Amino acid sequence: MTKIEPRLLKGFRDYNPKEQAARQAMFSKIQNVFERFGFLPLSTPVLEYKDILMGKYGEGERLLYSFKDNGERDVAMRYDLTVPLARYIAQNINQLTFPFKRYQIAPVWRADNPQRGRLREFYQCDIDAVGVESNLADAEVIACACKALEGLGVSDYVVRINDRRVFDRFSVPEDQKVEIMRSIDKYDKIGLEGVVQELREKNMDADIVTEVEQFLQGSFVQSDNASQNVQQIIELLQGLGIPKDKIKADYTIARGLDYYTSSVFEIFLPGKEQYGSVASGGRYDQLLNQFSDKVLPAVGISIGIDRLFEALEDIGLLPNSDLVKVLVLNQDEQYLSDYVRLTSALRDNGINTELYYESVKLDKQFKYAENKGIAYAIILGEKEKVAGTVQLKNLQTREQQEISERELIDKLK
Amino acid sequence: MTKIEPRLLKGFRDYNPKEQAARQAMFSKIQNVFERFGFLPLSTPVLEYKDILMGKYGEGERLLYSFKDNGERDVAMRYDLTVPLARYIAQNINQLTFPFKRYQIAPVWRADNPQRGRLREFYQCDIDAVGVESNLADAEVIACACKALEGLGVSDYVVRINDRRVFDRFSVPEDQKVEIMRSIDKYDKIGLEGVVQELREKNMDADIVTEVEQFLQGSFVQSDNASQNVQQIIELLQGLGIPKDKIKADYTIARGLDYYTSSVFEIFLPGKEQYGSVASGGRYDQLLNQFSDKVLPAVGISIGIDRLFEALEDIGLLPNSDLVKVLVLNQDEQYLSDYVRLTSALRDNGINTELYYESVKLDKQFKYAENKGIAYAIILGEKEKVAGTVQLKNLQTREQQEISERELIDKLK
Repeated sequence: MTKIEPRLLKGFRDYNPKEQAARQAMFSKIQNVFERFGFLPLSTPVLEYKDILMGKYGEGERLLYSFKDNGERDVAMRYDLTVPLARYIAQNINQLTFPFKRYQIAPVWRADNPQRGRLREFYQCDIDAVGVESNLADAEVIACACKALEGLGVSDYVVRINDRRVFDRFSVPEDQKVEIMRSIDKYDKIGLEGVVQELREKNMDADIVTEVEQFLQGSFVQSDNASQNVQQIIELLQGLGIPKDKIKADYTIARGLDYYTSSVFEIFLPGKEQYGSVASGGRYDQLLNQFSDKVLPAVGISIGIDRLFEALEDIGLLPNSDLVKVLVLNQDEQYLSDYVRLTSALRDNGINTELYYESVKLDKQFKYAENKGIAYAIILGEKEKVAGTVQLKNLQTREQQEISERELIDKLK
Repeated sequence: MTKIEPRLLKGFRDYNPKEQAARQAMFSKIQNVFERFGFLPLSTPVLEYKDILMGKYGEGERLLYSFKDNGERDVAMRYDLTVPLARYIAQNINQLTFPFKRYQIAPVWRADNPQRGRLREFYQCDIDAVGVESNLADAEVIACACKALEGLGVSDYVVRINDRRVFDRFSVPEDQKVEIMRSIDKYDKIGLEGVVQELREKNMDADIVTEVEQFLQGSFVQSDNASQNVQQIIELLQGLGIPKDKIKADYTIARGLDYYTSSVFEIFLPGKEQYGSVASGGRYDQLLNQFSDKVLPAVGISIGIDRLFEALEDIGLLPNSDLVKVLVLNQDEQYLSDYVRLTSALRDNGINTELYYESVKLDKQFKYAENKGIAYAIILGEKEKVAGTVQLKNLQTREQQEISERELIDKLK
């Protein structure tokens, strides 16, 4: 038989048990914080009609995984969790109570260049509040993401906030404003000169380029609605328990997605900026209107768990989860029914327990326990069978004690 | 602006917050049982190279979602979690410790006919033990699935077990044996006559058709290896705490997938057979060999959570999760900073709390709490502000008491 070479697509990865246990612990902690803030779970499908997703993302749209399905329908894998949320809301608008606060923790797909260290499949942890104008909601989604980071042991983070209406100062047609925002959004990576050069390459008016240059040098009056909104959000954030030194107004934040209308924000880990923002979001008051006659203002934030995973791995903050506690050794085939019964009793008492499947040399079984990070082994041979006991061996300290089954369960519980 | 009609693809669905909270509670319970049995989590991507998935599934293969990606690679969305596991094992064979026991809870995609009530995107909860020949592993994966069902409150289930080698009695070429198994697998749905008719339409020898007919009528000697294996698994299952009356040898179970080699099994809910099997699996000792020179015997089972969700909904066993406990009413704009601080204090004490975003009529805010199933409301107006207290209102009983913030937290914790 011809072998098929086992391999992964570029930009896709497996998470082995140790990594996946850590990720699941992260998801669970984030979910708890989301629920503490009153967000409820929603699940939408991975595949959507392509026209639902088109025209929402700007430049990134070319990264959409789209194809014709078996019924010749144009379909696409979701690119984010926000547009499917808008579709869901519009479709169920008469059954829902507003403000509608939901979270969704799920993967999305973007055919990005994996050389930039970005995955093509990655998880987003999103919260959104739909049907609310108050910027208390903006502050709340930001605070919730900060508390989720704190829940993961990350105390060192910085929130940068802007309001896209700050760019209304540039008197240019809408399409040019979008281009200006896209260039300004790269300010962190390409610097002032890079932005200026990009705008020139986009054939912007020299006057406008100069205006943008001055804007980025900070010489503008922060007294418009946009700046006031940013200041209010910052004050509310402090009320919600986020320390002032972790929050910064940053008028160079624009975000790449087309659907944001006013506030936009990003959270970075200082010293770990190479991972990009670990959370980002903004207000999108017009997105729902693309699917519905009703206008529903909305705001949300998304935590990028895969970047965060890498950053936490780097900082040494990945949760360590040794999931299996006990290995019942399969020492002697004739006592198999005892091993099976004992294993079941431990499991029925909520103890994560494995029974080694085959009666092979004990060395091999101990080695297995060690590789899997199992804390205890249980030995039951002829001597123990006669005495009605078992040997409990601590695999770390190598201490061993002979105890009854009842004592065993009490001890391990 | 032209509106885009918000709609879902056929065979795909959303789960609203109430449904999704119930599903997540189910996932979490199943995960706990999987971990109690010593299975560890693994995550593989949704997209694989198409050739990895081809040639493994038999008839079902035409249901694969496959397409060319932006780089003209032939890719496909995973059809199950077993073939990606085999790919992972082959790719990492030298880093892994065997037996390798893993679980994965994740969606898969099949472009099945939605008229048959099947979803095209559905979750599988899989456990597999790889690198083990002992049928103790077969018994263990079955027992683990049973305990997962019990963990969900399902006490009424039946396990049906067979061994595909029972079909070796038919002396026909391999491709014909596959066709016989596919027809026998439909026995439950189409009956004896249906199977006989299908085999005739497949142009099987009349002698073979008669043999199959006699086999299905039960007139065969159960003394071969296959039958013995089934009996041993049944005995081990009892040792693992599964009552004898819930286990049946059933020589008509064949399973549709091509990769099974010996034991095959299904779990049904009596009286709810219309949902099909809620869990199924088998042994696949040759699958790994398609990716690797090494032979690694393996066995696994998959719980179909979406069918189970519908069945539990039907039986009335869906877990009820009202996730938000408290709504802080936004009665008077001037006390907003008090509301924000109080909300934060409750959340910091682990209490799932919402603050109503806008200072609208209290009627509307109470209505919101009711719709969301929130148990308590907190009222803080001028009177309470002066007294340094709050009103805690039980929204079920309508009882209200005036207490201090400290008492409030102690009471709700």
